[in-house]
Amino acid sequence: MRTRVTELFGIEYPIFAFSHCRDVVAAVSRAGGMGVLGALYFTPDELETELAWIDEHAGGRPYGVDVVMPAKYEGADLGDAGEMLSGLQSMIPEGHRRFVNDMLERHGVAPLTEEGVGRYLLGWTDATARPQVEVALKHPIALLASALGPPPADVVEEAHRHGVTVAGLASSARHARKQVDVGVDVIVAQGTEAGGHTGEISTMVLLPEVVDAVGPDTMVLAAGGIGRGRQMAAGMALGADGVWTGSVWLTVEEADTPEASRDRLLAATSRDTVRSRSWTGKPARMLRTAWTDAWESPESPGTLPMPMQFMLISDALQRINRAGAGELTTFPVGQIVGTMNQVKPVSRVIYEMVEEYIETMERLRAFTED
Amino acid sequence: MRTRVTELFGIEYPIFAFSHCRDVVAAVSRAGGMGVLGALYFTPDELETELAWIDEHAGGRPYGVDVVMPAKYEGADLGDAGEMLSGLQSMIPEGHRRFVNDMLERHGVAPLTEEGVGRYLLGWTDATARPQVEVALKHPIALLASALGPPPADVVEEAHRHGVTVAGLASSARHARKQVDVGVDVIVAQGTEAGGHTGEISTMVLLPEVVDAVGPDTMVLAAGGIGRGRQMAAGMALGADGVWTGSVWLTVEEADTPEASRDRLLAATSRDTVRSRSWTGKPARMLRTAWTDAWESPESPGTLPMPMQFMLISDALQRINRAGAGELTTFPVGQIVGTMNQVKPVSRVIYEMVEEYIETMERLRAFTED
Repeated sequence: MRTRVTELFGIEYPIFAFSHCRDVVAAVSRAGGMGVLGALYFTPDELETELAWIDEHAGGRPYGVDVVMPAKYEGADLGDAGEMLSGLQSMIPEGHRRFVNDMLERHGVAPLTEEGVGRYLLGWTDATARPQVEVALKHPIALLASALGPPPADVVEEAHRHGVTVAGLASSARHARKQVDVGVDVIVAQGTEAGGHTGEISTMVLLPEVVDAVGPDTMVLAAGGIGRGRQMAAGMALGADGVWTGSVWLTVEEADTPEASRDRLLAATSRDTVRSRSWTGKPARMLRTAWTDAWESPESPGTLPMPMQFMLISDALQRINRAGAGELTTFPVGQIVGTMNQVKPVSRVIYEMVEEYIETMERLRAFTED
Repeated sequence: MRTRVTELFGIEYPIFAFSHCRDVVAAVSRAGGMGVLGALYFTPDELETELAWIDEHAGGRPYGVDVVMPAKYEGADLGDAGEMLSGLQSMIPEGHRRFVNDMLERHGVAPLTEEGVGRYLLGWTDATARPQVEVALKHPIALLASALGPPPADVVEEAHRHGVTVAGLASSARHARKQVDVGVDVIVAQGTEAGGHTGEISTMVLLPEVVDAVGPDTMVLAAGGIGRGRQMAAGMALGADGVWTGSVWLTVEEADTPEASRDRLLAATSRDTVRSRSWTGKPARMLRTAWTDAWESPESPGTLPMPMQFMLISDALQRINRAGAGELTTFPVGQIVGTMNQVKPVSRVIYEMVEEYIETMERLRAFTED
């Protein structure tokens, strides 16, 4: 296939694959798409290890890194990452800790310890994401993506100095224009059906709006609800130069998704997701479970602002996973989870997506033939 | 264009246009698509008048009628339409009347009278929709569509005896299969971004699921988020034989939309809709206004089940429109309201949609050319 993004990156198919798992990233790039590693969960040292591994295993094919650099978050004025962590930790209300502990207890999971609460800040802030960017730019990455709002202008400049293309996720035409204003090269227009942080407008409605808003000089990828060839074709029809996928890689053979979560994903229907603030404090689409239900119940103390919500719950999530308490699984995933019913290798998913895309083009062609 | 639905109905373009306005219905059919009149708001006598008018003005082109025949609603066991009306009327709680009256008062609209409450049952029930079907089948309609769940099997048979194709709206693969089971010929798979009664799954995700669920013998139309050529192409790419549109016809020259409402629709963005039960008791996407906000506020008594919610509010809606209290406008519309910014004649909308569809096909073709 040949679109502006396949030409720009020298890839075979305009398929971008977001994943937190290095094996998936490398496998997608080797299969002709472009893997993009979500850096969020890694310390700078860990990220260095992951990228070194990808450098060795991507077969010389291009790949990308995705960071989270929200413009607004609690604690941004508290100083460096260490000061921010302890400052924010002390701001987590006792009632919220109790609410989480009660929930864990009801499901037979060991409660939080004093030290456990607020231990993990992760890459949810500018202060913690910048060191990740520094690490990433030391590697031969082809793409730096910003997952929550426009990246700081100096980060865009630094990436460009390294010859790295910058992508930014947007869930409205207004957000897309803001990204272009700071120098972002590729807009990932993401509809509400997507997994993770997402807006309210569907991909069908959002894409033409974004394409028209950013104008012909900015490349656009379609995201949200895309996991197979017909959806890829629809995304391209809506005006995109390529597609950005995520959920579909959670159940591939190469993915490191915990088994209990994977089984829940394979069994879920497209009606089993919900947009909830119970993961990070910002609305994110995730699997509807006892966890998301509890945060929406009358007993809920309400979620905390980013990054405090994740600080509050991260230790609990680890305990839940270790305990195998699948009913409390907290997993960002999009509505296409309904068609993720079979574990396949990455190469097979890419092959089938391209095959169905080509069949779709042939089917469409017949509609307008004389 | 040539697809299974253009062949079946002998129409030029696979574009179906739902509208409550006879002028729009006739104009769409004359322009090469197929207009479908929403019968909901008409008594059998009124419907007779509307259809006679369309017979004269559609230029001999095929058109359809859309009725609402929900399988479940309050009062279904109360007897005939008259008994149901008075029975349901007495079941509307005093607190709900007070809530509506307080809202009207705050916005300077005259309150409900005792007689006004519950005066309108409309076509929201099996008992009131059946006479509409009888009237419709006396006219040379090409399509009978059921907007809320599968129509009764005997209605499907009666339509087939008249040589009329039956369509049914579905917002999940399971609902689509139920429609096929009662003999429905064409499934309108409608995503959450659509105006009016709608489910939670987006068009991008829903369409392939429905197409695969009903199998190759059932025709499928894509609905939800479709108002222009790129969206039409995306819908067809997702596996549809044609597209079903609605919102986009609210702001055409021919539409009888009240001016205050039309101006609100023209000004709204794609973020200005909300799925709310405040219109009919079932979730419907509509313009977000002071009305929808009030029903979601802590003071809200909660909405009533169908058809009681509409009985409660219908008189209020008429007063609001007469008073020109635009801030309380209650209008079912989809997310594409964001691109409905200009009043155009029907023929122009169809022409532009087809033109953009063809441009899109040419653009897509270049991606896979050798």
